[in-house]
Amino acid sequence: MSFFSPLYFAETPDSSQKKASESAPWSREEFEKRLRGKESFYHIHHEFHIQMNSGKLDRTAIQGWVCNRFYYQTAIPVKDAAVLANCTDREVRRHWAQRIIDHDGRTGDEGGIEAWLQLGEAVGLKREDLLSHKKVLPAVKFAVDAYVSFARRASWQEAACSSLTEMFAPKIHQKRLDNWPEHYPWIKADGYNYFRKRLSEASRDVVNGLQITLDSFTTRSEQERALDILQFKLDILWTMLDAMWVAYIDKKPPYWNSPQL
Amino acid sequence: MSFFSPLYFAETPDSSQKKASESAPWSREEFEKRLRGKESFYHIHHEFHIQMNSGKLDRTAIQGWVCNRFYYQTAIPVKDAAVLANCTDREVRRHWAQRIIDHDGRTGDEGGIEAWLQLGEAVGLKREDLLSHKKVLPAVKFAVDAYVSFARRASWQEAACSSLTEMFAPKIHQKRLDNWPEHYPWIKADGYNYFRKRLSEASRDVVNGLQITLDSFTTRSEQERALDILQFKLDILWTMLDAMWVAYIDKKPPYWNSPQL
Repeated sequence: MSFFSPLYFAETPDSSQKKASESAPWSREEFEKRLRGKESFYHIHHEFHIQMNSGKLDRTAIQGWVCNRFYYQTAIPVKDAAVLANCTDREVRRHWAQRIIDHDGRTGDEGGIEAWLQLGEAVGLKREDLLSHKKVLPAVKFAVDAYVSFARRASWQEAACSSLTEMFAPKIHQKRLDNWPEHYPWIKADGYNYFRKRLSEASRDVVNGLQITLDSFTTRSEQERALDILQFKLDILWTMLDAMWVAYIDKKPPYWNSPQL
Repeated sequence: MSFFSPLYFAETPDSSQKKASESAPWSREEFEKRLRGKESFYHIHHEFHIQMNSGKLDRTAIQGWVCNRFYYQTAIPVKDAAVLANCTDREVRRHWAQRIIDHDGRTGDEGGIEAWLQLGEAVGLKREDLLSHKKVLPAVKFAVDAYVSFARRASWQEAACSSLTEMFAPKIHQKRLDNWPEHYPWIKADGYNYFRKRLSEASRDVVNGLQITLDSFTTRSEQERALDILQFKLDILWTMLDAMWVAYIDKKPPYWNSPQL
């Protein structure tokens, strides 16, 4: 398996990889354990998220999160289409195409983007304001766009690996379902469909993404590369919350604004 | 002139543009005045920069800035090569190619990247650590990569327009030359060559970039688009400093670290 280096990775020192390539590969179990060990960098541990899940955020900060995160939601099927566009394996495409449908929907199931719009309305935002992305913070756009750019230019195996933050997602969705109704009684109940929907979808996607990763990254240096790719995706999610902290908690100009127009 | 919409701009509401297209274009003078008016968003006004130029940053924060900003410096000739790669006008390429040489250097003049490495050494960083980009903050990578991605996919006229933050650069370089030796006596004098070098280069580049922009964006909606593109570039520079503030002033984990390895 050969690797494409997008700009983000272009200058990464490869001395460690050279050393690593002399080492024996980790067993499949050990490799999976190390991938799962990356959970400590998941944005569930970010102070913004901790405050959000313990009821400490004001209405504007919650709205800011929903509004900025919607930019991420709308980018996901574009990212997944980029994976398909780079994939010559029909079996993989058959599985992966479902992700696009999950988000974009089809007759009878309006999908994840629509469910997020309902969340937006449930927290008091207007559908057209969400769709315009007018209030999305620049740093959030840069981070999300980096994910799409990566999927466009990386191999489909690398892009599949970058999606593995889904391993940690069911817990975060469940926590929101458990805590938000109590902490934020002003949020309408039909706003929670997205989190409920993703509980099962994410678990199914993880099985597929993990299998691709475990099958495709087999030498030690490839396995270490996979860990770097997963870290890259974790950095994207973390950086989004850093930007929201600056805008909605520290309330710093010029990007501090109310997402309600 | 037709416009390509990268993801960053893809969802921008175009209702204002529709309205704008019915308005008369601004005169060349008025258009230039509005472009120059964007100075109020230049990163010279960012709190990180204000503290840096008034001697309030500690050694680690200065090193962090030099180290992160080096990632930007190394991306600039790649960005300029992307402009050339999209440009079918030989005269424009003849001018624009000089920018690559300014940064990469040639026999007898080692160029801007080498001058920045000297700045790095003057503030106590190791050349190989700078070149590895190991300590560059993820948010800085995302922002800088967004600039390169834009230049790759936008028209060369749009990319030229995005470079117009150079209009505001000579002032920022002069201020550093005026203030730093007094505030930071521990920085070695030969570190300042980059700023001195860019004083004249930036002024020459502005004339060229401004002429392309004034010539290419002629309808009102195009002129407003040019202002959006310049804002996008201003957002990149501003967002870089936001990330450095979180890491080197607020010292927040997990990205807070000393750039000195």
